[in-house]
Amino acid sequence: MQRNPTQKIKMAKVLGRLSLASCLLALALVTCPVRADLSDEQENEQHPRMSASRDYVELDEELNTRFWYNKAQSILADKLTIHKKLNENRAKNIILFLGDGMSVHTIAATRAFMGDSNMQVFFEKFPYVGLSKTYAVDERTPDSASTATAYLSGVKANYGTIGVNAQVKRGDCLAATDSSTHTESIAQWAQEAGKWAGVVTTARVTHASPAGTYAHVADRAWEHDGKITSDGCSAELNTDIARQLVEWPVGRDLRVVLGGGRAYFRDKSMRDEEGFAGKRKDGRDLIKDWQQDKAEQGAEAKYVWSRSGLKDVDLTKTDYLLGLFDVSHCPYHADRTRLNSEYVEPSLSEMTEAAIKVLSRNEQGYFLFVEGGRIDMAHHNTKARKALEETEEFARAVELARDLTSDEDTLIVVTSDHSHTMTINGYPYRRQNILSLAPNLALDEIPFTILSYANGPGYVNTYDDQGRMDLSNVNTADADFQFQATVPLKSETHGGEDVGVFASGPHEHFFSGNYEQSTIPALMAYAANIGPFAQDKLKN
Amino acid sequence: MQRNPTQKIKMAKVLGRLSLASCLLALALVTCPVRADLSDEQENEQHPRMSASRDYVELDEELNTRFWYNKAQSILADKLTIHKKLNENRAKNIILFLGDGMSVHTIAATRAFMGDSNMQVFFEKFPYVGLSKTYAVDERTPDSASTATAYLSGVKANYGTIGVNAQVKRGDCLAATDSSTHTESIAQWAQEAGKWAGVVTTARVTHASPAGTYAHVADRAWEHDGKITSDGCSAELNTDIARQLVEWPVGRDLRVVLGGGRAYFRDKSMRDEEGFAGKRKDGRDLIKDWQQDKAEQGAEAKYVWSRSGLKDVDLTKTDYLLGLFDVSHCPYHADRTRLNSEYVEPSLSEMTEAAIKVLSRNEQGYFLFVEGGRIDMAHHNTKARKALEETEEFARAVELARDLTSDEDTLIVVTSDHSHTMTINGYPYRRQNILSLAPNLALDEIPFTILSYANGPGYVNTYDDQGRMDLSNVNTADADFQFQATVPLKSETHGGEDVGVFASGPHEHFFSGNYEQSTIPALMAYAANIGPFAQDKLKN
Repeated sequence: MQRNPTQKIKMAKVLGRLSLASCLLALALVTCPVRADLSDEQENEQHPRMSASRDYVELDEELNTRFWYNKAQSILADKLTIHKKLNENRAKNIILFLGDGMSVHTIAATRAFMGDSNMQVFFEKFPYVGLSKTYAVDERTPDSASTATAYLSGVKANYGTIGVNAQVKRGDCLAATDSSTHTESIAQWAQEAGKWAGVVTTARVTHASPAGTYAHVADRAWEHDGKITSDGCSAELNTDIARQLVEWPVGRDLRVVLGGGRAYFRDKSMRDEEGFAGKRKDGRDLIKDWQQDKAEQGAEAKYVWSRSGLKDVDLTKTDYLLGLFDVSHCPYHADRTRLNSEYVEPSLSEMTEAAIKVLSRNEQGYFLFVEGGRIDMAHHNTKARKALEETEEFARAVELARDLTSDEDTLIVVTSDHSHTMTINGYPYRRQNILSLAPNLALDEIPFTILSYANGPGYVNTYDDQGRMDLSNVNTADADFQFQATVPLKSETHGGEDVGVFASGPHEHFFSGNYEQSTIPALMAYAANIGPFAQDKLKN
Repeated sequence: MQRNPTQKIKMAKVLGRLSLASCLLALALVTCPVRADLSDEQENEQHPRMSASRDYVELDEELNTRFWYNKAQSILADKLTIHKKLNENRAKNIILFLGDGMSVHTIAATRAFMGDSNMQVFFEKFPYVGLSKTYAVDERTPDSASTATAYLSGVKANYGTIGVNAQVKRGDCLAATDSSTHTESIAQWAQEAGKWAGVVTTARVTHASPAGTYAHVADRAWEHDGKITSDGCSAELNTDIARQLVEWPVGRDLRVVLGGGRAYFRDKSMRDEEGFAGKRKDGRDLIKDWQQDKAEQGAEAKYVWSRSGLKDVDLTKTDYLLGLFDVSHCPYHADRTRLNSEYVEPSLSEMTEAAIKVLSRNEQGYFLFVEGGRIDMAHHNTKARKALEETEEFARAVELARDLTSDEDTLIVVTSDHSHTMTINGYPYRRQNILSLAPNLALDEIPFTILSYANGPGYVNTYDDQGRMDLSNVNTADADFQFQATVPLKSETHGGEDVGVFASGPHEHFFSGNYEQSTIPALMAYAANIGPFAQDKLKN
């Protein structure tokens, strides 16, 4: 049903009248005592009566007062239990789960996507929740680089920079070569305390978030040397992120590195295991260098590039594990390649499990960083379904980690670096598919989707020459459908509001409240007694 | 700068290419192994480099690692202090602050509106934060009526209904006349325990949120008898909300009722103190009835209709206080009427102060409900500035309440009923006016505002016959400017994600975690030892 010109004119008239009404109202506000009396019609618009024909089936139990009382009482009982004795154990292990771009909205929509609003994504069951303020030193709405510096090293930075304080501006060729600007990540604190450290991500292992554990660069784009020189900086003075991973102390000492990004480790003249060319310009094969370095140390080190390769590793005997499962980012969870009914790439859960198994070998404990890196990328593409699928898998990885560890000695913190602009709008019925159209029509008598974005490429599904597009006959639940956006941008932007922090394990109770994102590593380090915020240090 | 037809065609072409690109991508996803390698160009789009000319002044201190370490250490010190001894006192008094429609985004934007992202709205300083799931029994995205039932009586209800369980569907003429469907509010539990109860709002005192403390109706619209009959129901069988406030036990026993809505208490033939006509059809003057009822009880009761009237009341001698400061909702905070340089209507802070003073007279304590009711209405109108101004004043009222009470015996909980669809988008500079245009242009080379809505009347400022509107020369910081929206609706809809819960005082630590909104009254009642969730009851 495309709108015809007559309908378009009708709509313009309706909007014109609305506009006139607003002006008259504005006039009234200036000249007479303000009377906020809404007409009955206006009241109805604010809280529209929904049509009787709805696709929801009642859950009988929810109709009863007793059901809700029991539910509240059970939560109250949990509260009484956890507060009878706070978990003030020392955290031997810390696992930080980072859902990149996983806003409060994303979590709520995932819950709905899983079936019902009354469900909880696994980590929502954690006893403590906080809200983290994500702004960068120079931007209200940050990126994943500045925020990685905050939640991994306790220092807010400028947009686009990693592992350096705000003395360094993005792209500055020289500032970050002064090591006094470098920040220390909690991975470093863990290593210095004799713990092992590891990184798991569905993005490239050199991408902004994981790089926050080991790298110090003025520009997140400098993942390989060619990106430094193409920015007019010197690859002699500046070391690219992949090289920092292999050569600099913190990266070199990472016991587990699992994710994507093979191309960033090999010269453009080289082909990887799947036939894809490298990106480097310095002729190096850093994967070989990594293997050689570990061999020289006499360590049991394994490099793998596929799920089956990972499965073949004896994790109980592995000192160092490097897995690069894709030339660039790992595929979306639902898009992983199948070969003879087996997946070619491991899932985030599988990588997480492997990492925990290796790191658990160290009796002194570990710090593990796990990123669901493609929630963010799905949102940037305004592909809401993919963002929800990625969040669902991310939550599964958290559940697996909680199952594999004990909350007596392992602190798990789940958070996000920043928000996105996706919202849940309209008044969907309780069990309506969250990827479908809202039940009420807009003023132009055209429906709209429940999920939408403030901006982004989904604009292609929002307006065309005829006006606002009618999606009645479009499968908006398709994984590649790009949800509507007000403003046309090639890539949807991040959102500026707070993100959740969910904690379980030693000192979990520290993570409630509203605080700067840069507080998170301090709270974790206190719980584990490592780094500058160690309990022992603060006591002195 | 209006776009000309050539620009429009250019844009259509750009979008066309984008669309084609997506199709090719979709095709690739099906037929070949997924390679998530983003081109350099795509990476830059996701994390655009910002132009050098920005309007922000650096805060020197933020450039240093030490500044952030000190900040984190101070929060850590707070955590150590509050957990040394949990506040497990019995709550003599409870104050529930409800920011209607105050989403996580709204709070973050208010912070920015106040000057800088590093600020905290007062209640964000509270030591514990939770996230509340707001869905109604029949709708994923709820309204203020069903949610008031949840956060005041511990029972989730159907959209549009107040103080009844989900056996009652909105507008059902008969179901709610069966009192077994009625829920008990925490105001009732407080009264039954010998505490006093009061209600303060900037909306009509008969509006959905405040009505949740005392009313039981199948439809939030039934604020006066005429609305019941116009809905085809019997005003004999159903008692309207205003009458329930004056006649039914809980409403009649409210010691403080301050807000708007005079018209709902008087017959349409009557004029109020400012000359406005009433709305009732039953010939009654419920304000007179209220006064007579209290006089018959021999109580010191005061009815006031203006700020000066409120000021003249000797609160130390008042048993019952009814203040109706407007014919309908109170004006927006910034729109209050001035007469001889004095405001005619009290602010939310002033009403809150008066309420606390009266209620504090009772040695057994009190329950007070305070609503910032017009945050929601500003959002419905996509008037973001007004929503932020209302939130700012709401936070001032919370601060005043915390100053007037002790956290040793008074629990303050601040939350919201539901979200809205406003987001903070684009990549604004750190100290950029949150009401202004984002620094980067959209694909169509037209700017866009940092704040925007998924839907609503702001559509009038989004598209016209020429396409997307250019707001370069529009004062988007004006209080009546309606921010852009993707979908044209007369009234912007609520959002579906979780809202924050902020707690300070006895049992504040119970309020962390992620839970059903209906848990909130149970947690408060436990802290105060009242109602079905009283500590004493649960122990038996």
